[in-house]
Amino acid sequence: MRVLVVYDVSDNGKRTRLANELKRYGLSRIQRSAFQGNLDSQRMKNMVRSIAHLIDPSTDIIHVIPMGLRDWEERIVIGKEGGEIA
Amino acid sequence: MRVLVVYDVSDNGKRTRLANELKRYGLSRIQRSAFQGNLDSQRMKNMVRSIAHLIDPSTDIIHVIPMGLRDWEERIVIGKEGGEIA
Repeated sequence: MRVLVVYDVSDNGKRTRLANELKRYGLSRIQRSAFQGNLDSQRMKNMVRSIAHLIDPSTDIIHVIPMGLRDWEERIVIGKEGGEIA
Repeated sequence: MRVLVVYDVSDNGKRTRLANELKRYGLSRIQRSAFQGNLDSQRMKNMVRSIAHLIDPSTDIIHVIPMGLRDWEERIVIGKEGGEIA
């Protein structure tokens, strides 16, 4: 399944570890604090469990949102010269 | 249509003006830099045109992603005690 992961994590170290973990699961960065990509449901569960341990739940928040391919393809990108971060 | 708007805007003033504009279009904040909500296609076009003027396209980026209600309902929220910002 395709997912979008968007987060608001205040601590720099935690934020870096979270981004690295998302990359490790093969997700692609689309903004400083947003990734998207494809995962099967088992890896998706593992990823959710894993990233939940990397943040401070009293201050931080992560949304993991399933996303249809069609919806993703119809996104509008404003700014950074069509520029998503590869 | 339901949309998710996620942004990375460096300037504080621009970021505040962008958030206010998204609220003006009736979207709800789900994180510091992410909103979601429903818009008809005309208001959606107007919103995109309007928010494009509020950022610096050389440094900032906004994603506007269509999102099915089912996908939104199946989101996973980690942290902030189930806590989305109303």
